[in-house]
Amino acid sequence: MPPNAKIALHAHVELTPLSFLARSSNAYGDRVAVSSADDGRAFTYSEFANRVVKFASALRTAGISNGDRVALLSMNRPEVLEAHFGVPLARASLVAINYRLTSDEILYILRHSGSKLFFFERELFGVVEPILTKIKSCTAIAISSILHPPRHYPSIKEYDEFLESAVKKIPSFEIQDENSLIAIDYTSGTTGQPKGVMYSHRGAYLNALSDIMTSGMTSDSVYLWTLPMFHCNGWCYTWAVVGAGSKSITISKVDPVKVWNIIESEGVTHLCAAPTVLVTLASHAASKNIALKKKLKVFTGGAPPAPKVIENMEKLGVEVTHLYGMTETYGPNTLCEWRSEWDGLSLVERCAIKARQGIPHLNAQETKVVDLSMKEVPHDGMTMGEIVMKGNTVMLGYFKDKTLTERSFRAGWFHSGDLAVVHPEGYIEIRDRSKDIIVTGGEKVSSVEVEKVLYSHPSVLEAAVVAVPDDKWGEVPKAFVTLRPGKSLTAKELSDFCREKLAHFKCPKHFEFGELPKTSTGKVMKFILREKEWKGLASRVA
Amino acid sequence: MPPNAKIALHAHVELTPLSFLARSSNAYGDRVAVSSADDGRAFTYSEFANRVVKFASALRTAGISNGDRVALLSMNRPEVLEAHFGVPLARASLVAINYRLTSDEILYILRHSGSKLFFFERELFGVVEPILTKIKSCTAIAISSILHPPRHYPSIKEYDEFLESAVKKIPSFEIQDENSLIAIDYTSGTTGQPKGVMYSHRGAYLNALSDIMTSGMTSDSVYLWTLPMFHCNGWCYTWAVVGAGSKSITISKVDPVKVWNIIESEGVTHLCAAPTVLVTLASHAASKNIALKKKLKVFTGGAPPAPKVIENMEKLGVEVTHLYGMTETYGPNTLCEWRSEWDGLSLVERCAIKARQGIPHLNAQETKVVDLSMKEVPHDGMTMGEIVMKGNTVMLGYFKDKTLTERSFRAGWFHSGDLAVVHPEGYIEIRDRSKDIIVTGGEKVSSVEVEKVLYSHPSVLEAAVVAVPDDKWGEVPKAFVTLRPGKSLTAKELSDFCREKLAHFKCPKHFEFGELPKTSTGKVMKFILREKEWKGLASRVA
Repeated sequence: MPPNAKIALHAHVELTPLSFLARSSNAYGDRVAVSSADDGRAFTYSEFANRVVKFASALRTAGISNGDRVALLSMNRPEVLEAHFGVPLARASLVAINYRLTSDEILYILRHSGSKLFFFERELFGVVEPILTKIKSCTAIAISSILHPPRHYPSIKEYDEFLESAVKKIPSFEIQDENSLIAIDYTSGTTGQPKGVMYSHRGAYLNALSDIMTSGMTSDSVYLWTLPMFHCNGWCYTWAVVGAGSKSITISKVDPVKVWNIIESEGVTHLCAAPTVLVTLASHAASKNIALKKKLKVFTGGAPPAPKVIENMEKLGVEVTHLYGMTETYGPNTLCEWRSEWDGLSLVERCAIKARQGIPHLNAQETKVVDLSMKEVPHDGMTMGEIVMKGNTVMLGYFKDKTLTERSFRAGWFHSGDLAVVHPEGYIEIRDRSKDIIVTGGEKVSSVEVEKVLYSHPSVLEAAVVAVPDDKWGEVPKAFVTLRPGKSLTAKELSDFCREKLAHFKCPKHFEFGELPKTSTGKVMKFILREKEWKGLASRVA
Repeated sequence: MPPNAKIALHAHVELTPLSFLARSSNAYGDRVAVSSADDGRAFTYSEFANRVVKFASALRTAGISNGDRVALLSMNRPEVLEAHFGVPLARASLVAINYRLTSDEILYILRHSGSKLFFFERELFGVVEPILTKIKSCTAIAISSILHPPRHYPSIKEYDEFLESAVKKIPSFEIQDENSLIAIDYTSGTTGQPKGVMYSHRGAYLNALSDIMTSGMTSDSVYLWTLPMFHCNGWCYTWAVVGAGSKSITISKVDPVKVWNIIESEGVTHLCAAPTVLVTLASHAASKNIALKKKLKVFTGGAPPAPKVIENMEKLGVEVTHLYGMTETYGPNTLCEWRSEWDGLSLVERCAIKARQGIPHLNAQETKVVDLSMKEVPHDGMTMGEIVMKGNTVMLGYFKDKTLTERSFRAGWFHSGDLAVVHPEGYIEIRDRSKDIIVTGGEKVSSVEVEKVLYSHPSVLEAAVVAVPDDKWGEVPKAFVTLRPGKSLTAKELSDFCREKLAHFKCPKHFEFGELPKTSTGKVMKFILREKEWKGLASRVA
């Protein structure tokens, strides 16, 4: 054989998380894959796999073909986990939508993604109803819940009816191309309109493997779904829990009383949550003297956690690990892996380290902090640079937006917009953000988008929105507003105006009226507003 | 974008274990990557990476180009771990040779692989010397050890001199094709001559990830090299330990006193070993009342472990996991993953379960037990079938042997030759073997090869070699021999004759002289000889 001859790939199979389900249904068929803490339903891996196959078959029966998109708007429940396998098994891509968005935002995503089918949970009918007549090319299907039994809407199919329609055979769990789309995840952009981040089967497979390695989940683990599955497909844990053969418990809403009860009664070993959820959990636990009986590992991310937030959880005996990433990196891209030489530090010192972003996970391949000429910054804990990423767990690009995709991959690397230092042992720590983005409670908000809404108010002359620190949410948007001469407006009035047009998490929590600082050419100097709000703090993000 | 349009892979990188080293040298640069228990040398990940780059550069400087093969004959030492990264970094394939083979067998492998460079350890000079003049197209380079300082042989370069020759620049840790060869591992075939099993970068990457997930190794783990690195590249642990950022400790020989001392003094957390090594370790520990102070996980495989062997280790507080696989599956293909519902069983019952082959690991994709029509056997713990595999962690094929490769992939699946049942919970258990192979102490022996040697003795008329059970080695070869009329020969004489021509582990441990049972057409009925030896046992392999 000549040295460089192509070798026939006899045993080659394409990488896809679908193989996780194939394996787990064989190896753990009799064990619970997922149970709902809301309605008590539980499915073994064998039942779960059967439901997934049935769902995929119903999708194909309904006319879904290779490469189509299927949208989903639902709180966490077994059906959402099923969709993470059923939609790709039908050779389509899943578009899991943030249920905190407004009707118009959801409509934009349904249209932009070109979704053919749209599954939504009955409980969210309020946000769906206004757009039902506008999505004619997309069939809406309601997922009934025991909590919210079906009512009749002529234009909407019911989920059970849909499942029973399954007649097409699903040939195999093997796919043809590991670089094909498994999901499109919409995220806020600096320009305002949500961007569709494209995930491949290969990327999802590899990021899920890293989730398993990072978390140490096994077939004896119990994973609680405090993280919404629409967030980067639950940071790829939707696929990871099935890969590990763990038991998933879904809850539709994060109520701290309920969460602590489930942790106790179900023996939960792992959960993921944004820092703001940890604030709620810790403060409830402190007031009720909750003590853990079993080891609990918590993974936090979506926004930089304050050391104090970690500290309050660790005081309860919880082991917290900080994961950093973004929608464009399939969720987690780095982890603040603990080093045993830090064991001797005080709790406060340990939590300060735990709040760092850390090192890339094993499948992230390449994550570094660079200066403007793409040179790595020295590992001195002082020199700032931008975090850039390359590798199989970086998105394929933005759906239907070649220009933005190419711009985001300058010099072959994805540019995160996060500014960080690197500590001598190689651990990354974020200090600032170059993009006009606010991260609040794990959700991204474009300040430009919020400003546009403010400008649309007839009494507003000028507006600038910046992030300000907040104990619970990390950051919240604050609006600086100049009114038109002779007009008057209260913060309450302007807030109500915003809440009509924007998802509530995007609305400014604070308003300040007055002149805006400007350059000589008349440009608003937002950095002056930001500096004022963050004065005395070591970092410019939270 | 049309549904099935090819998407540009902006962030794509090819999978290779080389990325493990790139990451670990960044994330764990100051921590020990490998230390030698023989000579006390230790290298941090940063130093280790530098040595690897230097080695790769020296290989390129010496004329190694893409796709070339580099052979290595050495006991475990830091250089062997380095070669697992340095050779692929030089874009060549590593041929790590079993140092228990004879000179002629090694010569065959050097020639068949077409290796351009041949590194060998001084201590093994005895087996290398007879073939030095015969490998003219291959440059021999000696790895000196402190235990065996260099002596001068005019035809041999020294390793240090070789390293210092490095002048060519190694551009990057990124490779061009993840399906290219990272290693060729020679293993005994049924036909006698060793077969070169081809490993790809992709397969090595994925199998190493499974090693990490199975073992739970982290950057705080300490891995002891009781398993020779030439065995399926240390079952891919050569790459896995670096991926996990663990500390490796090499030992050249498995001496139980030394092993237990290192476990104690170095805080070893993980090791791999064939069952026969566990027999030695357990019996020494029992006699010395050794008690573990730290949790130790042991992974055993290469041959089916007897439940008693596992039991004796578990009595010491060691957690044993059985991994099953073969050279053709990059080492481990299944693991007998523990299920918590078995916790309540007695030690004897638990060890009987632990001796099973279990379930495929997460990256093994597809492993099943089938009947002759490739239909899966029922999971009843009774119906036998052959274990077959498909997936990225199955070899690319046999080097320079297209016919044998195609034969081994009947119906698109690799046929293991191992006959097994599947238990109701999906766990595989081997009961017999369809191929004429003996597995002794983790080494494969072709009975045909041994028979050929026996037939070459002038006094031998007929010979048949079968596996017989053995407490220490699992199985050993036994020869049934008919002498020529008028000739006489003792077992000792015939044994000495074999030991001259075969690696010692291949030589029959027992001889029986007399008539051989035959069919009416004169074919030797080996199954009758085997049945006699295994009578009363539940399985026909050990």
